[in-house]
Amino acid sequence: MSETNWTTSITKTAAGELRVRGYAITDMIARLSFAQTVFLILKGQLPTEAEARMMEGLLVSSIDHGITPPSNLAARTVLSGGNSLNAAVAAGILTIGDSHGGAIEQCARILQEAVVAGEDAATLVRRLKAAGKRMPGYGHRIHARDPRSNALLELADQCGFTGPHIRLAAALMEELERGTDKKLPLNVDGAIAAVISEMGFDWRLGKGFFIIARTPGLVAHVFEEWTTQKPMRKLGPLGGEYAGPADREIP
Amino acid sequence: MSETNWTTSITKTAAGELRVRGYAITDMIARLSFAQTVFLILKGQLPTEAEARMMEGLLVSSIDHGITPPSNLAARTVLSGGNSLNAAVAAGILTIGDSHGGAIEQCARILQEAVVAGEDAATLVRRLKAAGKRMPGYGHRIHARDPRSNALLELADQCGFTGPHIRLAAALMEELERGTDKKLPLNVDGAIAAVISEMGFDWRLGKGFFIIARTPGLVAHVFEEWTTQKPMRKLGPLGGEYAGPADREIP
Amino acid sequence: MSETNWTTSITKTAAGELRVRGYAITDMIARLSFAQTVFLILKGQLPTEAEARMMEGLLVSSIDHGITPPSNLAARTVLSGGNSLNAAVAAGILTIGDSHGGAIEQCARILQEAVVAGEDAATLVRRLKAAGKRMPGYGHRIHARDPRSNALLELADQCGFTGPHIRLAAALMEELERGTDKKLPLNVDGAIAAVISEMGFDWRLGKGFFIIARTPGLVAHVFEEWTTQKPMRKLGPLGGEYAGPADREIP
Amino acid sequence: MSETNWTTSITKTAAGELRVRGYAITDMIARLSFAQTVFLILKGQLPTEAEARMMEGLLVSSIDHGITPPSNLAARTVLSGGNSLNAAVAAGILTIGDSHGGAIEQCARILQEAVVAGEDAATLVRRLKAAGKRMPGYGHRIHARDPRSNALLELADQCGFTGPHIRLAAALMEELERGTDKKLPLNVDGAIAAVISEMGFDWRLGKGFFIIARTPGLVAHVFEEWTTQKPMRKLGPLGGEYAGPADREIP
Repeated sequence: MSETNWTTSITKTAAGELRVRGYAITDMIARLSFAQTVFLILKGQLPTEAEARMMEGLLVSSIDHGITPPSNLAARTVLSGGNSLNAAVAAGILTIGDSHGGAIEQCARILQEAVVAGEDAATLVRRLKAAGKRMPGYGHRIHARDPRSNALLELADQCGFTGPHIRLAAALMEELERGTDKKLPLNVDGAIAAVISEMGFDWRLGKGFFIIARTPGLVAHVFEEWTTQKPMRKLGPLGGEYAGPADREIP
Repeated sequence: MSETNWTTSITKTAAGELRVRGYAITDMIARLSFAQTVFLILKGQLPTEAEARMMEGLLVSSIDHGITPPSNLAARTVLSGGNSLNAAVAAGILTIGDSHGGAIEQCARILQEAVVAGEDAATLVRRLKAAGKRMPGYGHRIHARDPRSNALLELADQCGFTGPHIRLAAALMEELERGTDKKLPLNVDGAIAAVISEMGFDWRLGKGFFIIARTPGLVAHVFEEWTTQKPMRKLGPLGGEYAGPADREIP
Repeated sequence: MSETNWTTSITKTAAGELRVRGYAITDMIARLSFAQTVFLILKGQLPTEAEARMMEGLLVSSIDHGITPPSNLAARTVLSGGNSLNAAVAAGILTIGDSHGGAIEQCARILQEAVVAGEDAATLVRRLKAAGKRMPGYGHRIHARDPRSNALLELADQCGFTGPHIRLAAALMEELERGTDKKLPLNVDGAIAAVISEMGFDWRLGKGFFIIARTPGLVAHVFEEWTTQKPMRKLGPLGGEYAGPADREIP
Repeated sequence: MSETNWTTSITKTAAGELRVRGYAITDMIARLSFAQTVFLILKGQLPTEAEARMMEGLLVSSIDHGITPPSNLAARTVLSGGNSLNAAVAAGILTIGDSHGGAIEQCARILQEAVVAGEDAATLVRRLKAAGKRMPGYGHRIHARDPRSNALLELADQCGFTGPHIRLAAALMEELERGTDKKLPLNVDGAIAAVISEMGFDWRLGKGFFIIARTPGLVAHVFEEWTTQKPMRKLGPLGGEYAGPADREIP
């Protein structure tokens, strides 16, 4: 068996040289934002100005969700067992599965397939109901209206992402709430799914977007655990209390 | 034992509300870049313009290093075993240890302690040599001069980060290469260590910077493995070949 | 939301007391073998003598497969990056996915469902072929006849496990090889699947059996890497060479 | 750089053949217990009868500790996020760090170094106190007397392991409790450390023993979570209740 089949289109490495998708890392350091670089490495090309702006918002939106997510619980638990920061962050990322952040991938897949098939919201909802399936990306454990979804959709609108995937996502919300008292708002997973679909990303990158966005949050939690808490303490999702800066405005 | 001791200063969560270090997530989505948000969540305050610009470059610099790093090998191997994207990325992050990316943390610690103690480069090198220790953050397996270090230091200079940590890092290079033919350039780990120290970050965040910066690269590699390669293939660090876009310039 | 819903039927813990599935740990230490205890904790009851003997063989069979499996590559790579033994072993277990060890679970599920449905080998193979699916648990990358399968089936026979799941697994091999030159022997995954199904284990424990059996092998590889190799070395699946004890016989 | 330096002394693999430390896997399946095989793969030689018996007890002793350990919390949390059994077990193993199971390694190291140096209990305790260090392997969060330690030491006595490491461990307990009301019993980590040191295992295998022993417990917890609980539930270490079989006796 040959090992020479490891072909990659991502990065070229040679002595004194490093090029990501063809661009020199030195130029990238001098001229690109991190979000632009994330777009480049995932998509294979530089973003337009609108794509770059949207990318910033997408990544900002999921940076953290406080003490409640299971990924933060797992990450802090691993650190508390006497392990390194990278092992703890890895445990957090391990936790991001089909039921935690996975709705991005599932929702994006449905939106992308429906748009290709020319299916409208009513038909799609009927088909899902007939199959006994829930539509992922709608509803939230904590938020009746997820503040992040609106902010993302407004930004998408400003950036000119107003195509079929986003229109379908909006139509689905109306359709899902029709004839029921239950609130089924587009949540942040659903909003990200709609926007990345509109931007032409493969649905299989859904979890990847969440992981990239959430990693700084995991690092912050693990660092806080490391530098302020005792090892092997009793950790649970209910006892936490916020003791950080008071509400303030970006100047 | 009480569970109520989970105090956090990072993020406040309530129904319909989410504030990171005091700032509303909706405002952050509308107005901040991802790198600014990373600075905010790690440091607890918004970056100045210079800090924000530096942050972009820091994160861009480590986004990927092609097929050679062990973290990419581990991540692709886990995917190839028939696992999910998040498990594969977690394996990559698990690999980022004391010998892979760990020099940032080690070098930053030494720089920060030396600056506090007022130790100069010559004294520091003598002390390390007497203890039989190498100075982390200098030298590279592949690059004689690491192109990323220069680009980062130039950017730091432009942004006005020219203080004692960066001066010490530069002086150390001269000192380490004195009386030897061996090239011991400041590598990218060392440059990041010098810059984040200058920016006032705790050395214990060293691995965290590398993990945040490298996660998009890991996602790209895992996605490429998932969508273009066969499961359970023979993976090694030597057989890879770059087959992506030709060299090109940022317009 | 209440946290009191963490009900477990596995182990009772109190000050000075520890009981697994109702049995005192002190009695277990004094009187049970490790394999008996594994049976107990997975099945909820003590094994018969035949079940205990079979359990030993099942776990022995998968303890290691040398340098070739991706799980050993990932585990040694993580250690080589400068990480702890537990992080490295965790990376190995992360690698054990649908394409690596996963055939146990997949094969056991098919066998269990076919036996419940009263489906015979010929019908099952026709159904799989019509659906364009391969039968998991048959064929091997390296072994034309997997030495472990025969040894396990002989042991099963001696222990009196000769029921419908094992008969179906044997009939499937004949059926799959009918009219083809290709060898599709029952491999070790398939043999384990047949035996644990015969012993009444849920197919969802398939990967669990492999993980329990392989963990000592992973520990041995990680320990060998730690104590005999340099950090950050180039690791691949092809360059390894066996340099251990010569062939010998159990006295 | 050459990849041919992957030398291993563990397992020889060839078509139709598999030998662990020189012994054919087929003979091992037919004749060895799992615990004997674990000894073989870690030590490089077959155990005597006494070593084999001791090995069973060592592995049985740490198979599980109910809902309280952080490793079970992390493992169940990862499963609850919608991930596979192997990812969840990996998270559990990730948690086993310097503060959770790590005392085996730390205690074994101290015992082995003290025996080599001919240091007695009183001197060792004085030296640790002078350095402001605690002796690992003594004391327990929950148990005043750890029932597992006594059972292990009794078994060790029966098996003839009565050498200097075990004598030192016993003497240390008296020494540590001298002049204090605090109970500092040898806990299960300390007992394992003493016994494996007596059996000639390298202290760097300490965490490995715990990982091998605990993996079946992790599999049982993850399987229970998977098959009986809802995804994304609130998991904490305090709300659990034992609802399994009543106390019973091994017949």
